Amino acid sequence: MTAQPKGRLIGVGTGPGDPELLTLKAVRALQEADVVAHFAKRGSSGNARAIVSGHLKPQIIELPLLYPVTTEINKDHADYKSAISAFYEESAQAVANHLKAGRIVAVLSEGDPLFYGSYMHLHVRLASDFPTEVIPGISAMSGCWSQTGLPIVQGDDVLNVLPGTLSEFDLTRRLADADAAVIMKVGRNLPKIRRALEATGKLDRAVYVERGTMQNTASMKLAAKTDDTAPYFSIVLVPGWEGRP
Amino acid sequence: MTAQPKGRLIGVGTGPGDPELLTLKAVRALQEADVVAHFAKRGSSGNARAIVSGHLKPQIIELPLLYPVTTEINKDHADYKSAISAFYEESAQAVANHLKAGRIVAVLSEGDPLFYGSYMHLHVRLASDFPTEVIPGISAMSGCWSQTGLPIVQGDDVLNVLPGTLSEFDLTRRLADADAAVIMKVGRNLPKIRRALEATGKLDRAVYVERGTMQNTASMKLAAKTDDTAPYFSIVLVPGWEGRP
Ligand SMILES: C[S@@+](CC[C@H](N)C(=O)[O-])C[C@H]1O[C@@H](n2cnc3c(N)ncnc32)[C@H](O)[C@@H]1O
Ligand SMILES: C[S@@+](CC[C@H](N)C(=O)[O-])C[C@H]1O[C@@H](n2cnc3c(N)ncnc32)[C@H](O)[C@@H]1O
Repeated sequence: MTAQPKGRLIGVGTGPGDPELLTLKAVRALQEADVVAHFAKRGSSGNARAIVSGHLKPQIIELPLLYPVTTEINKDHADYKSAISAFYEESAQAVANHLKAGRIVAVLSEGDPLFYGSYMHLHVRLASDFPTEVIPGISAMSGCWSQTGLPIVQGDDVLNVLPGTLSEFDLTRRLADADAAVIMKVGRNLPKIRRALEATGKLDRAVYVERGTMQNTASMKLAAKTDDTAPYFSIVLVPGWEGRP
Repeated sequence: MTAQPKGRLIGVGTGPGDPELLTLKAVRALQEADVVAHFAKRGSSGNARAIVSGHLKPQIIELPLLYPVTTEINKDHADYKSAISAFYEESAQAVANHLKAGRIVAVLSEGDPLFYGSYMHLHVRLASDFPTEVIPGISAMSGCWSQTGLPIVQGDDVLNVLPGTLSEFDLTRRLADADAAVIMKVGRNLPKIRRALEATGKLDRAVYVERGTMQNTASMKLAAKTDDTAPYFSIVLVPGWEGRP
């Protein structure tokens, strides 16, 4: 009988920006980890890495996983799909090498790991071979509706979470039938999102939040935002809750 | 000129059950608070109160807010509506009295405060009169999909969050058009939820989680659950993410 290796994978949700929104469990995982991995664009250290910087042990091994392609490329193109899929395979391999050597690897994930997070590409490739734990994080939407004090859903409200990357037709169709909505991945999709909200009579209720819970955050009624520039870290919230007692 | 009173309202998300899922910010708020309020049913101390019990100062003032009615009453009935609305008014008044006396009041909220949480009934009544802050919490759904390691949404997936209290027709209609879904408020609604999932061909993908992240949690494929008994703290998850690279 060979001893079980202690290698362990932990997906660590870091929350949306404010380092105080880390959970106690995430802080403990960072203390236990031998290796900390995070996804980032080339030339940027990544939001998740910045959030945890006060909690990393000096001797920690860092494993940055740098995207080979930018979001400028059409995501439906076959070249993009094969490049990104090869990248996830290589990343999983790099993490697996540390796990096989018996190390605890914490993979940082901005917000909540399994909610539109890149961590899940490692999870599906590794969780069947290594002990794995996922530590939930405060999602960007929770951080944003809390910061703006916006009750998002109550009672029988239905919440629709919509990626801003959907077609204008799909956004409009979904918004028409939603009590409450959250639109993620705003960025350059803002003009389209604005038109879909306008078409469904929901523009007046919509709130725009950029860099939620970060130091340089800003928020406003979307109808009052005079330009259509939005950073990657931006979101639109449409509160429900129309029939409160 | 009179000095500003230091009275301050803090809505504190406690997460779904595991006390380690408290955020650093929630722990700090509990240290600062003079009064801790929480909603509960008569005869029960409430889940949120149990989650934070290790973090309360010995001298803290406790303000339990006890529901006058049970969920056995039909929620659309006028008697229920007026009873519950009077209860929220009285509760807001009880909190306001402490705020006017200059105290910091932390109102506990299981999961995330503004996401189907009772806290929001105090928030809408008090936030315009007193300095107010909302600290997001890990939602029940995040806790449950993390515990079961279920990637819930990715890429262009749309997520529908549906209260199990919806009619069977509405549940079915919404599920038919959802990439991914979370069904909250399961309890006695389970047979109806099961039928709606079956009708839309999604029963096989559905995962049932009760008391997520608590010590006595259990989870299973919903199709493999042989009875239709479910506690108040239970949820159904239907993962999306069908076209992953
Ligand atoms: C790939 S998704 C990651 C979501 C994350 N895992 C979560 O749990 O919220 C990235 C999108 O999340 C939203 N987002 C993330 N952090 C944010 C923040 N601090 N403020 C506003 N939006 C944010 C933006 O819409 C962004 O385009
Ligand atoms: C009034 S809602 C409160 C939701 C909470 N504010 C949140 O952020 O998730 C209550 C419902 O949340 C779900 N829920 C809350 N805690 C849960 C847990 N630990 N496990 C499973 N479901 C839970 C159940 O569906 C329950 O009926």
